Amino acid sequence: MTVIIDGKAASARVVEDVTGAVLQLEASGHRKPGLAVVIVGDDPSSHAYVGAKSRMAKQCGFNSIQHTLPEETSREELMALVASLNADPDIDGILVQLPLPKHLDSEPVIQSILPEKDVDGLHIVNAGKLATGDLKTGLISCTPAGAMILVRQIHGNDLSGLHALVIGRSNLFGKPMAQLLLNANATVTIGHSKSRDLPELARQADILVAAVGRAEMVKADWLKPGATVIDVGINRVAAPEQDSGKSRLVGDVAFEECAAVAGAITPVPGGVGPMTIAMLMANTLTASGLSARE
Amino acid sequence: MTVIIDGKAASARVVEDVTGAVLQLEASGHRKPGLAVVIVGDDPSSHAYVGAKSRMAKQCGFNSIQHTLPEETSREELMALVASLNADPDIDGILVQLPLPKHLDSEPVIQSILPEKDVDGLHIVNAGKLATGDLKTGLISCTPAGAMILVRQIHGNDLSGLHALVIGRSNLFGKPMAQLLLNANATVTIGHSKSRDLPELARQADILVAAVGRAEMVKADWLKPGATVIDVGINRVAAPEQDSGKSRLVGDVAFEECAAVAGAITPVPGGVGPMTIAMLMANTLTASGLSARE
Repeated sequence: MTVIIDGKAASARVVEDVTGAVLQLEASGHRKPGLAVVIVGDDPSSHAYVGAKSRMAKQCGFNSIQHTLPEETSREELMALVASLNADPDIDGILVQLPLPKHLDSEPVIQSILPEKDVDGLHIVNAGKLATGDLKTGLISCTPAGAMILVRQIHGNDLSGLHALVIGRSNLFGKPMAQLLLNANATVTIGHSKSRDLPELARQADILVAAVGRAEMVKADWLKPGATVIDVGINRVAAPEQDSGKSRLVGDVAFEECAAVAGAITPVPGGVGPMTIAMLMANTLTASGLSARE
Repeated sequence: MTVIIDGKAASARVVEDVTGAVLQLEASGHRKPGLAVVIVGDDPSSHAYVGAKSRMAKQCGFNSIQHTLPEETSREELMALVASLNADPDIDGILVQLPLPKHLDSEPVIQSILPEKDVDGLHIVNAGKLATGDLKTGLISCTPAGAMILVRQIHGNDLSGLHALVIGRSNLFGKPMAQLLLNANATVTIGHSKSRDLPELARQADILVAAVGRAEMVKADWLKPGATVIDVGINRVAAPEQDSGKSRLVGDVAFEECAAVAGAITPVPGGVGPMTIAMLMANTLTASGLSARE
């Protein structure tokens, strides 16, 4: 029987653990972990994401602060806000919602966040810590960290002897995911748009992680029977079978046919997706340095 | 005909390029690039390495400064020296020879070097830049950077469609090497001591890079015919055929038998080895920020 990996349930467990830790902190007289979310401009989907993050932070019992800046905010104003949050002892985590308006270059803004408050795991110092296997003092990018929890749910913490293929080599997901798998002792292959014969590579993988943004690219005949399939893609496609003009979300994996061959597989939606926001909460607790004192 | 990749010649070309650039700098009135090498204690082989680096730096026309500190140097004294070199505008590169005496933890010392003067490429910021594909502003660890030059000599700059296997996952070599190969568009697999069936993985590799420290582990039947083989191992083994008590250096690859199958292969010694010190010179020129002004 193929295991359909339930990301919503795994995400809820992470949030429950974080919430429990915060309650314990409060009971022993500590302050709440503080998360500051910064959003610039009026992009509706960015506002929806930020709203969800702020709500989840409150649900976890965090001190949740949202800074909403107008579209025309200058680089200096944004950098000054980040600097004040860096200096604020009640703020443990700072998240600047991306993308920023076009006149603002995101890279210097992200790099100006103190690495130890960079709960999105995007700072070059956190990338360097992950790349050198320092998972204790670094903050790890939320989506790969969440995907790893789903992998561990199936295979445990030690992936020795297992071959993992990550398709996609972005800084946000593919590269950190490969480093996490390697750190857990997997043999890791990174494939991408310039790779020859991805299906043949995929057929050798005990763990296949797809993060390319191409709807249902991974087919059943790409899979080693019994493989664990982690689908990070979220693609909107037309769904004329429901109604003309309707659309639906699919992953990078052709779910129905692959579920028949895989040993375990994440659905889209409801797989990796819900993990990202949960790991943001876990990172904020980690950044507070308070979790160790439970 | 198998190409025996000549690391000594490639290394000499790098040094020649650096030396030429320094001559041009001087001719146009710029100061020389400055390299400070710090050695603590009396370890004879460390002194031999440092001597070779200082001689090469002089040969390149650098302002080469060596700081030799006694074995009993305290952490505070060493950190104070690094701080003064960080602040010295005539010093572009700082190298602290490892290993340090046992009472000194090397990690905080290395991390206290300014990333832009870290010509060994060991700072977490340089690891992060490499991990995120920023090869322009980061300094890259010398041995993998040198190994990449040998790979490029055979395959050019774009490794699209080629499959590379790196055996070994150290922070000093395996991980940065994998990142460099990935950045050049290779499909990259990282194998290591916990990998199952390395020979089978190796037989799929167009480029095989071995860095495990096990004498002649890679055999001819591990190779895809025509593969490029980069041997980073340096192992001393008994050589009774020469004289009882004698020893010789061998790599991680069984050279004679592999040379018969490979398309191109590095010897040991004379392959990757000579590249390391040459890349230290290239990194110092890069760190000086002067190379761009030629």
